[in-house]
Amino acid sequence: MARVIVDVMPKPEILDPQGKAVTGALQRLGFTGLTVRQGKRFEIDVDGDVTPERLDEIRDAAEKLLANTVIEAFDVRVDAE
Amino acid sequence: MARVIVDVMPKPEILDPQGKAVTGALQRLGFTGLTVRQGKRFEIDVDGDVTPERLDEIRDAAEKLLANTVIEAFDVRVDAE
Repeated sequence: MARVIVDVMPKPEILDPQGKAVTGALQRLGFTGLTVRQGKRFEIDVDGDVTPERLDEIRDAAEKLLANTVIEAFDVRVDAE
Repeated sequence: MARVIVDVMPKPEILDPQGKAVTGALQRLGFTGLTVRQGKRFEIDVDGDVTPERLDEIRDAAEKLLANTVIEAFDVRVDAE
């Protein structure tokens, strides 16, 4: 079974309160010099082969459901493994 | 500035209600044959070079703060770009 990965991250110009909270928590735990942005990762198992058409379909799904494209950017790729 | 990626996913034997909800929503939208698991992606900008010691520190941070290792598995890697 083929696997496709969709990464969804807040756009660079968008504030990321979750990432900011994590950055602060890391500092308080003594992990300094790290700036974090937090997003989502979707691992999608695809029935059958991942054809270019199937990938386009998943891109469409990512745009419609997985990402809020007003504030988030997404990346779709076939898992190398 | 170097960037490290930490992916956090629910362990295979753990139920993933978020992923299940997304899988169902995709089906209702007409995207069939896709099974989704949902996790988190952290993009960490590191001040200075990413030495092996620095990576170990980030692994430690992932274990302590970014992932709940009872139910989640994590993967730490240097961003290729």
